[in-house]
Amino acid sequence: MGMPLELQTLIVTKGKERRVKDNLFILEKEGYRLYPLDIPLEVRRTLQSEASGQAVVKKLELADNRTIVTYELVALHSTN
Amino acid sequence: MGMPLELQTLIVTKGKERRVKDNLFILEKEGYRLYPLDIPLEVRRTLQSEASGQAVVKKLELADNRTIVTYELVALHSTN
Amino acid sequence: MGMPLELQTLIVTKGKERRVKDNLFILEKEGYRLYPLDIPLEVRRTLQSEASGQAVVKKLELADNRTIVTYELVALHSTN
Amino acid sequence: MGMPLELQTLIVTKGKERRVKDNLFILEKEGYRLYPLDIPLEVRRTLQSEASGQAVVKKLELADNRTIVTYELVALHSTN
Repeated sequence: MGMPLELQTLIVTKGKERRVKDNLFILEKEGYRLYPLDIPLEVRRTLQSEASGQAVVKKLELADNRTIVTYELVALHSTN
Repeated sequence: MGMPLELQTLIVTKGKERRVKDNLFILEKEGYRLYPLDIPLEVRRTLQSEASGQAVVKKLELADNRTIVTYELVALHSTN
Repeated sequence: MGMPLELQTLIVTKGKERRVKDNLFILEKEGYRLYPLDIPLEVRRTLQSEASGQAVVKKLELADNRTIVTYELVALHSTN
Repeated sequence: MGMPLELQTLIVTKGKERRVKDNLFILEKEGYRLYPLDIPLEVRRTLQSEASGQAVVKKLELADNRTIVTYELVALHSTN
């Protein structure tokens, strides 16, 4: 009797993030995932890609075997 | 750079739960706490008291250094 | 890039525990599992069986996709 | 009744790591800390310093309110 959980150290968006306002984004993922809150994490578009920026997770919602992450983009890396 | 978290095995209400509807309750706690979702947990009024029932956590919200737990009471122990 | 982990609230032995000495036991499990340390947990022989006792996890070792739990049995429920 | 735990995304050595052999190091920390195993993490000498390298945690031991991390250095950043 356990709860499966995936510990995360990065935010991988796969382009599925939705902007809520300004620098605040929402990302929905399958399964239960634990992203550390309130500390800077790297943001990547894919697992293999370079960091596209840095973000801080502000809110984490776990329900119905899904995880909703609300994060604030705090730095954006130019990629050209 | 870490995120402090408290791993929980019980729901201790301290009488602060609010009924949302039927057997669904909401409880707000200070700090970030991790309650296993979707598996039966003991519910107690205080840490020292006997189990008052069993519940299943349906939703967990972590934000602003607070944790909101939504749980469904699945069994109630009579205490007389 | 995440680390799969199973959050545990019980110790389910499946009869695979080995006594180290006195009330101290070792149990090896597949995968990475997180058992809360230093707090009383229910011990069961199978997931469906009644609690056979109470134990406190003293040590947790995660490596090579396995988890080794060292626990001290603090109470034993008679089952006859 | 909970277990306090700190979720880690980085390895901060504070110069206290001990080399076991080759690229394998051991680091002991106060409290219970959860470092993701088997995935690359940044290594820093202090929280504020630049990354000194990348490492993969191979083993995590939690006991007596201490955490022992065994990690393999997989990349070293030159800092001159």
